[in-house]
Amino acid sequence: MTKLPNTTADQLEQVLTAAAAAAPAVAAALPAERAAWIFAAADSLDAAADRLVPLAVEESALPEQRLRGEIARSSGQLRLFAEALAEGALHEPIIDTADPDAEPIPRPDLRRMLVPLGPVLVFAASNFPFAFSVCGGDTASALAAGCPVLVKSHPGHPRLSEAVAEVMVTALREAGAPEGTLAVVHGDRVGVEALGDPRIKASGFTGSVAGGLALHEVAANRPDPIPFYGELGSLNPAFVLTGALEERRSEIAAGFVASYTLGVGQFCTKPGLLLLPTGHGLEKEIVAAAEDVAAAPMLNERIHQGYTAGLARLRARDGLEALVTGDESEGGVSASLFKTTVPRLIEDAAELLEECFGPTSIVVEYADDDELYAAASLFRGNLTATVHGSDDDADVAARLLPLLEGRAGRVVWNGWPTGVAVSWAMQHGGPFPATVGSIHTSVGTTAARRFQRPVCFQNIPGGLLPELLRDRNSLNVSRRVNGEITRRDITS
Amino acid sequence: MTKLPNTTADQLEQVLTAAAAAAPAVAAALPAERAAWIFAAADSLDAAADRLVPLAVEESALPEQRLRGEIARSSGQLRLFAEALAEGALHEPIIDTADPDAEPIPRPDLRRMLVPLGPVLVFAASNFPFAFSVCGGDTASALAAGCPVLVKSHPGHPRLSEAVAEVMVTALREAGAPEGTLAVVHGDRVGVEALGDPRIKASGFTGSVAGGLALHEVAANRPDPIPFYGELGSLNPAFVLTGALEERRSEIAAGFVASYTLGVGQFCTKPGLLLLPTGHGLEKEIVAAAEDVAAAPMLNERIHQGYTAGLARLRARDGLEALVTGDESEGGVSASLFKTTVPRLIEDAAELLEECFGPTSIVVEYADDDELYAAASLFRGNLTATVHGSDDDADVAARLLPLLEGRAGRVVWNGWPTGVAVSWAMQHGGPFPATVGSIHTSVGTTAARRFQRPVCFQNIPGGLLPELLRDRNSLNVSRRVNGEITRRDITS
Repeated sequence: MTKLPNTTADQLEQVLTAAAAAAPAVAAALPAERAAWIFAAADSLDAAADRLVPLAVEESALPEQRLRGEIARSSGQLRLFAEALAEGALHEPIIDTADPDAEPIPRPDLRRMLVPLGPVLVFAASNFPFAFSVCGGDTASALAAGCPVLVKSHPGHPRLSEAVAEVMVTALREAGAPEGTLAVVHGDRVGVEALGDPRIKASGFTGSVAGGLALHEVAANRPDPIPFYGELGSLNPAFVLTGALEERRSEIAAGFVASYTLGVGQFCTKPGLLLLPTGHGLEKEIVAAAEDVAAAPMLNERIHQGYTAGLARLRARDGLEALVTGDESEGGVSASLFKTTVPRLIEDAAELLEECFGPTSIVVEYADDDELYAAASLFRGNLTATVHGSDDDADVAARLLPLLEGRAGRVVWNGWPTGVAVSWAMQHGGPFPATVGSIHTSVGTTAARRFQRPVCFQNIPGGLLPELLRDRNSLNVSRRVNGEITRRDITS
Repeated sequence: MTKLPNTTADQLEQVLTAAAAAAPAVAAALPAERAAWIFAAADSLDAAADRLVPLAVEESALPEQRLRGEIARSSGQLRLFAEALAEGALHEPIIDTADPDAEPIPRPDLRRMLVPLGPVLVFAASNFPFAFSVCGGDTASALAAGCPVLVKSHPGHPRLSEAVAEVMVTALREAGAPEGTLAVVHGDRVGVEALGDPRIKASGFTGSVAGGLALHEVAANRPDPIPFYGELGSLNPAFVLTGALEERRSEIAAGFVASYTLGVGQFCTKPGLLLLPTGHGLEKEIVAAAEDVAAAPMLNERIHQGYTAGLARLRARDGLEALVTGDESEGGVSASLFKTTVPRLIEDAAELLEECFGPTSIVVEYADDDELYAAASLFRGNLTATVHGSDDDADVAARLLPLLEGRAGRVVWNGWPTGVAVSWAMQHGGPFPATVGSIHTSVGTTAARRFQRPVCFQNIPGGLLPELLRDRNSLNVSRRVNGEITRRDITS
């Protein structure tokens, strides 16, 4: 892995000063203006794909096609935020006109919208060198929210991070964004330093539970605590109900293996457990599919080490049977698979319910519906939970789904959790430890809200109001007016 | 002050168990059902006013009329949340229908709404024995969000807290809410104990900076950190521009004094500083009005002690001139007032910009526009900032308002910050130290969001979806469908 020298204290001071200086101008830019900056960055990213992808292949060991898809996803994500911004929807305008007869006290004219928090520190992830890194969802949502962004690069792809930053910074500058709107810094201690700096007003993180908790502590214990939005770990259990098993046995076996081994199992939404009814008879098929998956190198040495340590831990557990024992050579890691039962899972929950990041999963057999519900109740917070069901499973599903809704941010039916669409309705984040901080989403349009705060303008004359809150709804945005959502102008 | 015995460990265990047991049923209740419980609680509160008000007078020393108004405000607040809940708006439904042609990957059907976090711990405030206590905004918003509530009573009004809880608990039970939906506990250590309990999923607090930070630390450093929404301290600066001064001198003098002495200065939105242009000539009038304010007892001994200590600190500052020196007898506290200049304020900011909770304020004279902007830039986070301006002040206001918007949750024009309307657009919360945790509002309809988290349902069959997310929009609620806000049904 090529290393880049850490950002020096002087350099960090420079980028923090620049970000703080840029903040008022970034915030004050009209929605359409800021959107134009973001569209420009998206276009430049696409245009630079041929140059960036080889660098990404070299540093991440991920295949070219996947990385090209990730650039498309990232530029699409930037454009989605820019569109939502330009149309005013990200600012959530709410207006209550004056009501002199309100009880118990007369109500003044109140107009509220979301405004940016200020400079945001983004901690990039290893497993998506584009989509959760310099040009990823945290950066896109913070820029759209109106915040300058400082990205702490992931040590797994430092040169790519520099290259992407150069593309983005140039595009932003040429589109008219102030200097200091985006910068990248390198070094774990530099990241902690920046997180404690009063000029940083919020932070987003994607990574391990231990790393995320340590940074959350820094953010929470500053003299002026700031919001820290961490996406940490997830097991993503998948439950197969008996009706679905009868209807789609082979599809389920193949889909499960494809999902847990996708990208060498390096997805935060990898299904880490598959609940199957005892006597499912699917073992042979699943094992054969898992053994068929081609070996491939992991993202980097640190992740490879973490994976082998996690596997060693699992292999040492009593009552956990190895169905497939993969090879963990550094040059190419092949899939592993384990098997256990619900009673054993309950007994050994502390060990078995710990995420093992890589191409391994556990088949858990449940003897009856009670064991199924008991297993579902065992999980802490997750990004996702998946159910495979048929019409025959409706009663069980009706009882199972609320248990999963209570523990997961996204509940998937007859599909697999890997593959996260970027849209308005997406939710990527769940109860702790899936996320830490107030439970948020780090993917999808509402992710911008993490980096905004509401401000209410009371009786402010029209000429001094932000455009979005004036009587005339010039952007034709949906606003909540006196409780009702409407696009109408305000008339007095 | 009458004391009640602290809640015992056994009693706390009982109410926590009951709250956790109630959580799924409270969450699963249909919006209209839960709304009916809250309406019932509001009606019972109104009906019990004659019984509750004398108790409140006795424990808080606040006048009867004010307390009757506070009950009306609290029951109105409960009803506003119940209405927003019943119509579905609190759940923020968002639907993206499947798009097999989406790039780079096909999009499944995604339907997202807000669901409750689980049992919420509310720390009641002293200064609003109803509106920020057992039946206050935190309780109303958490119940509407679908969370059982545990209120840690304020030691200033323990018997009233018990009495209000009895009214509310009875009303909730009779309306069909599960046992454990609401409970009150007493004792500071009991509150800390509860905040660390894994069954508590979020917390709301209104009180001092020191108290709020200590509790924030407990919430953030649990093995499973939970969101802590604290409303702490605020100075609420008010700026008078020259045009407004010419137009409405006497109105401004009278309005300022009335606002900072309202409720014996015991409002979190009390204007703690009044910026006036040098040579304003308003001193005599302000002093006369302040000296005219009738003395009245403060809420309780602890607050009285804090106020006298704060005043002593201010009286000892060099360069801070006493314009009115009040009397701080326990039986009746009269107003105080100080005067200084912007350069002096900047020099002594650490001392002079500390909130002093009670009927005192500081007149700060600014020599020119630069001093005005310098003063505005000096403040940390505030709940409110106020500007008095006229048409002649438009240029100065256009530069001043963005500075204030960056530092306050609510910007008031030609009014006073005391008196917080409860509506959709209200924002009561600003950058630290006005609030801690992600910046939120503790007043107004969007306060419910603090106690909710988003869940996305992917490809879930219609019959298993929550009512609000089904194709047929039976509640006729505004939903964001494929990016557009609409009340239409989904047709495929």
